[in-house]
Amino acid sequence: MSRLKIGIVGGTGYTGTELVRLLSQHPNAEILAITSRKEAGIALSDFYPPLRGVSDLRFTTPDEANLSACDVVFFATPHGVCMAQAPALLAQGVKVIDLSADFRIKDPKRFEQWYHLPHTATDWLERAVYGLPELNRDAIKTAQLIACPGCYPTSVQLGLKPLLERGLLDTKTLVADVKSGVSGAGREAKVANLYAEINDSFKAYGVVGHRHLPEIKQQLSALAGHDVDLVFVPHLVPMTRGIESTLYARLLDPTIDLQALYQSAFAGESFVDVLPAGVLPETRNVRGSNRVQIGVNRAPESDYVVVSVVEDNLVKGASGQAVQCMNLMFGLDEGLGLNLSTF
Amino acid sequence: MSRLKIGIVGGTGYTGTELVRLLSQHPNAEILAITSRKEAGIALSDFYPPLRGVSDLRFTTPDEANLSACDVVFFATPHGVCMAQAPALLAQGVKVIDLSADFRIKDPKRFEQWYHLPHTATDWLERAVYGLPELNRDAIKTAQLIACPGCYPTSVQLGLKPLLERGLLDTKTLVADVKSGVSGAGREAKVANLYAEINDSFKAYGVVGHRHLPEIKQQLSALAGHDVDLVFVPHLVPMTRGIESTLYARLLDPTIDLQALYQSAFAGESFVDVLPAGVLPETRNVRGSNRVQIGVNRAPESDYVVVSVVEDNLVKGASGQAVQCMNLMFGLDEGLGLNLSTF
Amino acid sequence: MSRLKIGIVGGTGYTGTELVRLLSQHPNAEILAITSRKEAGIALSDFYPPLRGVSDLRFTTPDEANLSACDVVFFATPHGVCMAQAPALLAQGVKVIDLSADFRIKDPKRFEQWYHLPHTATDWLERAVYGLPELNRDAIKTAQLIACPGCYPTSVQLGLKPLLERGLLDTKTLVADVKSGVSGAGREAKVANLYAEINDSFKAYGVVGHRHLPEIKQQLSALAGHDVDLVFVPHLVPMTRGIESTLYARLLDPTIDLQALYQSAFAGESFVDVLPAGVLPETRNVRGSNRVQIGVNRAPESDYVVVSVVEDNLVKGASGQAVQCMNLMFGLDEGLGLNLSTF
Amino acid sequence: MSRLKIGIVGGTGYTGTELVRLLSQHPNAEILAITSRKEAGIALSDFYPPLRGVSDLRFTTPDEANLSACDVVFFATPHGVCMAQAPALLAQGVKVIDLSADFRIKDPKRFEQWYHLPHTATDWLERAVYGLPELNRDAIKTAQLIACPGCYPTSVQLGLKPLLERGLLDTKTLVADVKSGVSGAGREAKVANLYAEINDSFKAYGVVGHRHLPEIKQQLSALAGHDVDLVFVPHLVPMTRGIESTLYARLLDPTIDLQALYQSAFAGESFVDVLPAGVLPETRNVRGSNRVQIGVNRAPESDYVVVSVVEDNLVKGASGQAVQCMNLMFGLDEGLGLNLSTF
Repeated sequence: MSRLKIGIVGGTGYTGTELVRLLSQHPNAEILAITSRKEAGIALSDFYPPLRGVSDLRFTTPDEANLSACDVVFFATPHGVCMAQAPALLAQGVKVIDLSADFRIKDPKRFEQWYHLPHTATDWLERAVYGLPELNRDAIKTAQLIACPGCYPTSVQLGLKPLLERGLLDTKTLVADVKSGVSGAGREAKVANLYAEINDSFKAYGVVGHRHLPEIKQQLSALAGHDVDLVFVPHLVPMTRGIESTLYARLLDPTIDLQALYQSAFAGESFVDVLPAGVLPETRNVRGSNRVQIGVNRAPESDYVVVSVVEDNLVKGASGQAVQCMNLMFGLDEGLGLNLSTF
Repeated sequence: MSRLKIGIVGGTGYTGTELVRLLSQHPNAEILAITSRKEAGIALSDFYPPLRGVSDLRFTTPDEANLSACDVVFFATPHGVCMAQAPALLAQGVKVIDLSADFRIKDPKRFEQWYHLPHTATDWLERAVYGLPELNRDAIKTAQLIACPGCYPTSVQLGLKPLLERGLLDTKTLVADVKSGVSGAGREAKVANLYAEINDSFKAYGVVGHRHLPEIKQQLSALAGHDVDLVFVPHLVPMTRGIESTLYARLLDPTIDLQALYQSAFAGESFVDVLPAGVLPETRNVRGSNRVQIGVNRAPESDYVVVSVVEDNLVKGASGQAVQCMNLMFGLDEGLGLNLSTF
Repeated sequence: MSRLKIGIVGGTGYTGTELVRLLSQHPNAEILAITSRKEAGIALSDFYPPLRGVSDLRFTTPDEANLSACDVVFFATPHGVCMAQAPALLAQGVKVIDLSADFRIKDPKRFEQWYHLPHTATDWLERAVYGLPELNRDAIKTAQLIACPGCYPTSVQLGLKPLLERGLLDTKTLVADVKSGVSGAGREAKVANLYAEINDSFKAYGVVGHRHLPEIKQQLSALAGHDVDLVFVPHLVPMTRGIESTLYARLLDPTIDLQALYQSAFAGESFVDVLPAGVLPETRNVRGSNRVQIGVNRAPESDYVVVSVVEDNLVKGASGQAVQCMNLMFGLDEGLGLNLSTF
Repeated sequence: MSRLKIGIVGGTGYTGTELVRLLSQHPNAEILAITSRKEAGIALSDFYPPLRGVSDLRFTTPDEANLSACDVVFFATPHGVCMAQAPALLAQGVKVIDLSADFRIKDPKRFEQWYHLPHTATDWLERAVYGLPELNRDAIKTAQLIACPGCYPTSVQLGLKPLLERGLLDTKTLVADVKSGVSGAGREAKVANLYAEINDSFKAYGVVGHRHLPEIKQQLSALAGHDVDLVFVPHLVPMTRGIESTLYARLLDPTIDLQALYQSAFAGESFVDVLPAGVLPETRNVRGSNRVQIGVNRAPESDYVVVSVVEDNLVKGASGQAVQCMNLMFGLDEGLGLNLSTF
């Protein structure tokens, strides 16, 4: 098979550079163009020094890029961009993988409520496939437009799927206490994300409402077969990469064999690693990897389950998952280019 | 008033060195002796270089120390030591402030269940006063033996007190997701706490049972007036000092004015700072300080409350609180020696 | 003595907030106004949360501030501001302590060469006193205008002073390899200083020319009594505060007793701590403190001396030194408000 | 070609686990056994969780391991072990790559002076080849025993090679100010390497004599063709991986074109990346990679050169270099299994 011709729109953030890292090592991929109006002409490795030796691409303007000649175009852009630009590409038969939020939330009113932006491509919104392979593998294979899940939603869905789809939880008691490294906040110049503000400190943020809440609720409700409640509080960890999500809910039947349930639910999933009973995951274990690790336990003296999930927010939480979807869409081995072991 | 004569048993850990830092600056305190059989003869500042210029004490053996001549003796020891050594001092009229767990849990069977050690001073266990001034101020003033709260329990109790003592929570739904800096793990040589194991990573630990669970449940139950359930999961943050506790529970009446409740509950408490509505605390704000900061919010689209509490685990979570108790026990201004502002 | 009335111009950076922290605890100081045109009206503790509980000041516009009523005005501004605004205050008898570079370099051509700005207050440049008390104590006492040293220059001068002033070094061989925490880069929103760019990495910077070079050369030449050569390379350490300077030079007489020389040279200096022979300083030892620690050693199998100096870049390297100068200028105890012990 | 059969002696440290990571991804390698008397029977991924999913090996005792059936055995052991055990393997025709110091220093008296251990395999010491391919490629190809360079020595040699071998430096003025992440200190339980001791701090260490000094001097002297002087001071950086070495020396002819010299000296070296003029390397750029980056500059207002070199201490500074040597010894492509791009 010849190499897939790839375009990337908006590769100046951490998900964009991570996509370049992954696709540069992918045996069946060739990046034709990566666009940035602002950085056009600049070498990626000057813009982001860790890419030196990985890629010798330069940013181009969208006009020079000829994206319609690509097999697939990734959008690693702020929300609003993909819904404006993707429809023209899609109409020309190009496949699109959107790493932004534009096509994640099925209800356009709900999208508007949380993103303060009217949805301008609602026809495509209906046809978009939510790109979480462990939930949606078959639909992804035939999709033309993929809405890649958010970083937090990926971990919360994988962590609760086995219990929710079997109706084993009191869905009035779901709590997701999630923690992310700072790369999740993007590569924009903001005082709040300076080293001297973040180092050696820890905080919750977004307690009054984080945009991943409606996405997660939509997805967990679909898994449960009915609307679920959810308390969702994100936190910022002084580390670069990684998400740990600790998930809590009351078990309807506390005698269930949690370990067996999880091992069976994810048997055959090469990117979901259920840890042995009693072992808890650490984010460093999955640094640079597309793997998720899950530890599931009963809380002591309680009928609650506690699920701890770790992922690399830039890989399984964003760019790795996007490549996993790409592999599926083009009939490639699902793990192609993703079997890296990095510490 | 002449200076209080102070002894410290077991000052080789981080709570011990923090106690030395605080008492060395305290205008009414004089450390007569700090004991360590293993380090006897060694200058504190050689043992722990940040103490250079703060204290010129040397460790002495317990035999040389003449602790019975002290007004008050602090135990910063592993559990089991204080219950063995304190009774003799107490019998001589010396006051004792125990930073270990020996006198925190009122039920000796419960203590034995979690600490795997029979309690050998149950008479003093009954008379010990739990040293959380914001709960127990009057009892502390007249106590001879203080059981200083654990670091996590301090933050959880202060965070839930206003709601629990008014019966405003569904106490079947309490979840405490707590996060600590690495100094909380002590200063012992363990591979798990090496820099290269902890840096740039995050994990939950102790999900199958942490020893602070029975302490917190005992205390929250006392506040509520009945037994409460609690899910309690600690996490390790790549930072040196600080605890952030995010506390969740369903509100029986979601219309309550949380902000007013908290401000009123802690009015006059100089070491509890209720943040303005919508503001969340960061651990760096209380680094080196005896202050606790609390942010209280309703979870969006939910009837749960979310309380975020930060403290310095070595100060308000340990040695600062011990000094606050000492001040109360000897009729001094409660904040004496504790009004530091450090970043 | 009544409290000194203090104004601060430009307190939005880390040296400004540190100055507020120090002066808020100073027994003889009262901050009348802190100005920022951009942040006027904002509470300092909203602008910089660690100041909550430390100061309840708000930023004011320069017009509202009435700085001419102050006893002393500190400038914590980018270069160029103080030379423009200070002369009017000085003419009214107000004392000025400049934490910027405006009055550090005596030769206005040299200033212009490195700062690309003509000097517009050369008459005051002549009268300005370089504010390093360990070099210049008497002149500081009677100065009206103080040029506070840069953070790196403070450590390099103190580290080489004993050897240079006695003519013990081959001044063709001076190398200063200096390393700073990230707060030294200021609190401006820049991609290069984001947490995710700095964490878990280390680099040299400014090798083609750092603005502290001419300042250090001027000062070392004065100590030596003749022009010295200097290689000066700054590095960025993934930590918030602290500078470590490792200083190298060939000893003209390698048999000299370095330890005795340094102890004698700094005898009586309360803010310079010469470590015992063979002990090397760590930046954490002086975190939050105005103290400098110095370790001096012969390099093995070599006739070079190696001096390692640590300081807190925001305290002895900036705001603490400024307060030390203020104390001297107003006849107060030199260490007033600076004897903090913080970890 | 069939896969190389590999044994690893002593894989419980960070260089051992890194070797496992690299060899597990190497297309022509198969690890037959990894030995540890103490951890025999334990899975590597239980011993070091980041290896989960990378390797399912277990530690075996040396007796079970049958190392003489291997094509090559790596020693990742403390010094003294390889010189005791390797001769028996070598006698059976097994190739040995020693990552310890046993065969680095050619003069056994010098070895004894710095390692306080008599050399017991001096015949093999003569035949051992120093495993720095950029210096010694042809000798490595035919070697039976490789002495892998130390982490610091690798960076210093590569950084100075172009200048030394052309006689362009005043070799009385060499200064190497080197900085390492904490993984360089090993994975032993020591208080000094605890997170809470290292985090947010920086220090020099070993100024009175580091064991890499004689190795570096031996090698630089060979490059120069005469004995050189060297001042060598290591520092500890609060980061996990990475070394930055800043190298100083007086240029005999300051007009030389440094950039051209370095680009020409390393043309064709796939693991040495000379950065464009004026660009300085960062350790994160080479994290997890076998690449070295070098920036070379003239110090301003000086006739000194300043060379900044970065490497990953566990890859090019240890295990990656060992694999690079293995590839050469067995006629494989030199970069096989080493072309990873990880951030």
